[in-house]
Amino acid sequence: MSAFEEQDKIGMDAAFEQAYISYKKENGIPIGACLINNLTHEIIGVGHNERVQKNSPTLHGETSCLENCGRLKASVYKNCTLYTTLSPCIMCTGTVLLYGIKRIVVGENKTYEGEIELLQSRGGCEVIVTDDQRCIDIMDEFIKEKPEVWNEDIGEED
Amino acid sequence: MSAFEEQDKIGMDAAFEQAYISYKKENGIPIGACLINNLTHEIIGVGHNERVQKNSPTLHGETSCLENCGRLKASVYKNCTLYTTLSPCIMCTGTVLLYGIKRIVVGENKTYEGEIELLQSRGGCEVIVTDDQRCIDIMDEFIKEKPEVWNEDIGEED
Repeated sequence: MSAFEEQDKIGMDAAFEQAYISYKKENGIPIGACLINNLTHEIIGVGHNERVQKNSPTLHGETSCLENCGRLKASVYKNCTLYTTLSPCIMCTGTVLLYGIKRIVVGENKTYEGEIELLQSRGGCEVIVTDDQRCIDIMDEFIKEKPEVWNEDIGEED
Repeated sequence: MSAFEEQDKIGMDAAFEQAYISYKKENGIPIGACLINNLTHEIIGVGHNERVQKNSPTLHGETSCLENCGRLKASVYKNCTLYTTLSPCIMCTGTVLLYGIKRIVVGENKTYEGEIELLQSRGGCEVIVTDDQRCIDIMDEFIKEKPEVWNEDIGEED
């Protein structure tokens, strides 16, 4: 296994663990993320959706992860991969583009299509969708249980 | 003065007050925002950039304001105006588009062009730029004093 393959496994496992913790331990939305430095292959931070836990409309999986990473320089972001269990919405896509993160690995985009075209449109963010069945299954379970919370999270009417 | 003109004055004054508090009282970045319900003309919440104060990469003026407003339904957002002292970056633009806020009043877009075209591109968010000299002046002062903090806030290299 190459260093990058190993990094991608570690990154998505950490992102999924965040999704699992959010849903199964905290009754939140099961979307998680992880930021890894591509040069050192070390995790900088992880996070998960905090809508329920913190009454937050801005802490999606990806933004929560970046928030937990704290203030970073542009030179750091451009050498990172962001792992997320679900295809990013336009807020999270905008955040990735603002900070110039050049590589994103997405667990799945079946539940929510997200903004992959916009991600790829400016300066070339590399997007890899892994079709991770764990990520699909946990979102299926959650949306069946709490469709109104899911709709709220993506700005849709009930 | 019509109810909307009065609302717009109240909204931008509140947004500017947030920018002023952030910079002059808290040594932060002088960008503020305010969300007003267009039906009642009441302020739902205000906020300002929290990069310095909370070590936060995701709490820009607009996202901080929406965070302080807490969880709202799509039906509320669509009847709101967001006031911001500075033209929104792509993260904040994405947030406005995610939640379907249909009207945004921008204090100025001279310091930072922002993403007005993207704001207008999906479903028609109305964007009004007011060329507010207070907003321009406070950003001028801040950027001269701390250019490296400003660059960090917009994801640019020093």
